[in-house]
Amino acid sequence: MTAPVVAVVGGGQLARMMAPAATALGLHLRVLVESPTSSAAQVVVDAPVGAASDEAAIIRLAEGADALTFEHEHVPNALLDRLEAAGVAVHPDAAALVHAQDKIVMRTRLAALGIPVPAWAALASPADLARFLADHGGEAVVKTSRGGYDGKGVRVVRSADEAADWFAAAACGGAPLLVEEKVPFTRELAVLVARRPSGETRTWPVVESVQREGVCSEVVAPAPDLDPATRAEAVDVATRIARGLGVTGVLAVELFEVADAAGGPPRVLVNELAMRPHNSGHWTIDGAVTSQFEQHLRAVLDLPLGDTAPRSTWTVMANLLGSTLEDPTLALADVARLDPGAKVHLYGKEVRAGRKLGHVNVSGEDLADVRRRAVRAVALLHGAPSARREHDPADAPAGT
Amino acid sequence: MTAPVVAVVGGGQLARMMAPAATALGLHLRVLVESPTSSAAQVVVDAPVGAASDEAAIIRLAEGADALTFEHEHVPNALLDRLEAAGVAVHPDAAALVHAQDKIVMRTRLAALGIPVPAWAALASPADLARFLADHGGEAVVKTSRGGYDGKGVRVVRSADEAADWFAAAACGGAPLLVEEKVPFTRELAVLVARRPSGETRTWPVVESVQREGVCSEVVAPAPDLDPATRAEAVDVATRIARGLGVTGVLAVELFEVADAAGGPPRVLVNELAMRPHNSGHWTIDGAVTSQFEQHLRAVLDLPLGDTAPRSTWTVMANLLGSTLEDPTLALADVARLDPGAKVHLYGKEVRAGRKLGHVNVSGEDLADVRRRAVRAVALLHGAPSARREHDPADAPAGT
Repeated sequence: MTAPVVAVVGGGQLARMMAPAATALGLHLRVLVESPTSSAAQVVVDAPVGAASDEAAIIRLAEGADALTFEHEHVPNALLDRLEAAGVAVHPDAAALVHAQDKIVMRTRLAALGIPVPAWAALASPADLARFLADHGGEAVVKTSRGGYDGKGVRVVRSADEAADWFAAAACGGAPLLVEEKVPFTRELAVLVARRPSGETRTWPVVESVQREGVCSEVVAPAPDLDPATRAEAVDVATRIARGLGVTGVLAVELFEVADAAGGPPRVLVNELAMRPHNSGHWTIDGAVTSQFEQHLRAVLDLPLGDTAPRSTWTVMANLLGSTLEDPTLALADVARLDPGAKVHLYGKEVRAGRKLGHVNVSGEDLADVRRRAVRAVALLHGAPSARREHDPADAPAGT
Repeated sequence: MTAPVVAVVGGGQLARMMAPAATALGLHLRVLVESPTSSAAQVVVDAPVGAASDEAAIIRLAEGADALTFEHEHVPNALLDRLEAAGVAVHPDAAALVHAQDKIVMRTRLAALGIPVPAWAALASPADLARFLADHGGEAVVKTSRGGYDGKGVRVVRSADEAADWFAAAACGGAPLLVEEKVPFTRELAVLVARRPSGETRTWPVVESVQREGVCSEVVAPAPDLDPATRAEAVDVATRIARGLGVTGVLAVELFEVADAAGGPPRVLVNELAMRPHNSGHWTIDGAVTSQFEQHLRAVLDLPLGDTAPRSTWTVMANLLGSTLEDPTLALADVARLDPGAKVHLYGKEVRAGRKLGHVNVSGEDLADVRRRAVRAVALLHGAPSARREHDPADAPAGT
């Protein structure tokens, strides 16, 4: 059989969620998983075990594959350069991916492209930080330039001392630090854009992302009450980044929406980039004609991209972060009983406090209702008791 | 991990298409596949190899499973009885499944339930057939009572001689024969209903099924211009069958729509039953809130059923039957370029003339357009040349 082969580095839920799309399109998915019980290993047949830093494993993974891609950014850039030199179709390529791996490289390049970003500076020393704090109201956000995710490697500080431990780590060979102004944003938005090697680019509707403690909690698609000018700027920014950086596959651009000093429509500032399917796009599985997972596979194979139109007026995704249940599937019956239209997505991961274990998508015409339903479903999966009555009409009487 | 386990006998595309739903719900799918390269074996991790008649293999398959189900009807009924006696949760159970395995048993029971069926008779001899032909206008449909599918085991005859070979086979231990009137139907309809052990039942919208040479070619959801009374009768018939036969899981009821002699709304007659996800329900993957595959898994686990509402005004499914291409994936780019909204589903099966290799779902507001698009997409996957122009606007110019 001559089915196209897509190789993916990383066996987490992002690779797991590529499986249904690969199945539908008749593509062969091959995922390098960290362990045989990884989220993706449970649902992908061709799942060799190996670390993302294991060059030999990645070379084997890519053998005969039509494209090599990633479900996380932690693949050594030098390794990618060697793979590309060896003729492997790496998407996104090393030159693009470095901007999702290194925040200093990203900030520098975006500024060069004229993309709006928060005020920022690379930090060579605590004195640099002190100076920045003095210039920006005494409060700022220090970040490690490499390795952070889901709020890790990000710290709000009011003095250089509060980052002393990080400076020490950086001095001992850790990733350099940078500092950004603490943006007085009205809310966070995200734009998901797909681009393929031939150049075609498509974006999904701009969404609002609600964060709790640095981790995505809910996503509302589309962002409610979004000024058309702000929407246009968000889409333009994301598209210019995708093209300017030569990104292939799916690119998630996380944005701060900020009030315009002159009283015009809100503006946007780029917060972070991810070059892979992203939490802000999980709603697309049920809420858009083409999911981000299907689109990522199409893009890395340079297949013409799918329609990104929404299927419903509103879709809300709520993240399941941790659970008091041994296994969230124990609450499936309660969720199903309470909400026959809720679309549950569980990742098969071992329960740990605050860990991304799944999400629920709900679509409908009434945003407040959709939102409430999504949050409620996740609460049940988290272990909240259901308000189950003695006799449940959904359980029909005997003889039916 | 304590994820529910669903065991499935049969490794064809129907089991393959259960995988995405199992993945999303965090269920463990275990499929008994005929070969390691089966359609389902390509996408299901836990896929032991064995025949549907291999009792030992099925017992092993069912060990520790929360439910045992099937993607075809060819599991020996006696084996199912023994499994049930051993405490395995078989869904649908042997008592129900026999009505999908044996047309004489089915016709007899439906008549007893007062369900409208074509005129029919079991055939003990060619004389029985001659008598039936004389009573029904000289033309009738002879069927083998067990083993037929996709038009096989069905023959239109005008004399008893035309079934001589079948009578000979029946006399040598083959399945008994039956005959049915050749129904002057206006069109064929299908109703898909799901029922779970607790009794809850849900139906999807009634669809129109277009057959070519005994095999399903297209399905239109919902059936256009369906008289509300006809629709109500169809839904009532399907629901009464599900309850009357104690079916659990998904049940497909294929119907003939016939003109009413008295000039009232069209009536329906039951043609065939299938107790598993069915070709007439593939549109639900993209066109309904809950797909038949997700619903089947929920039903056999006795989870409350999902919402069966349609997601779009019209959804048309077109079957890919054979291909002149070595692999239909070779046409993915052409389909994608021509129709970014077409949802392609390929089964990973080796190409053979007339074989079910996949299907395409298209949804939209304009039925004629949706239908044309689905048929066109399938034509491309079948190997029809695309009308590709030299410069394709979907392939953006260099520098993008």
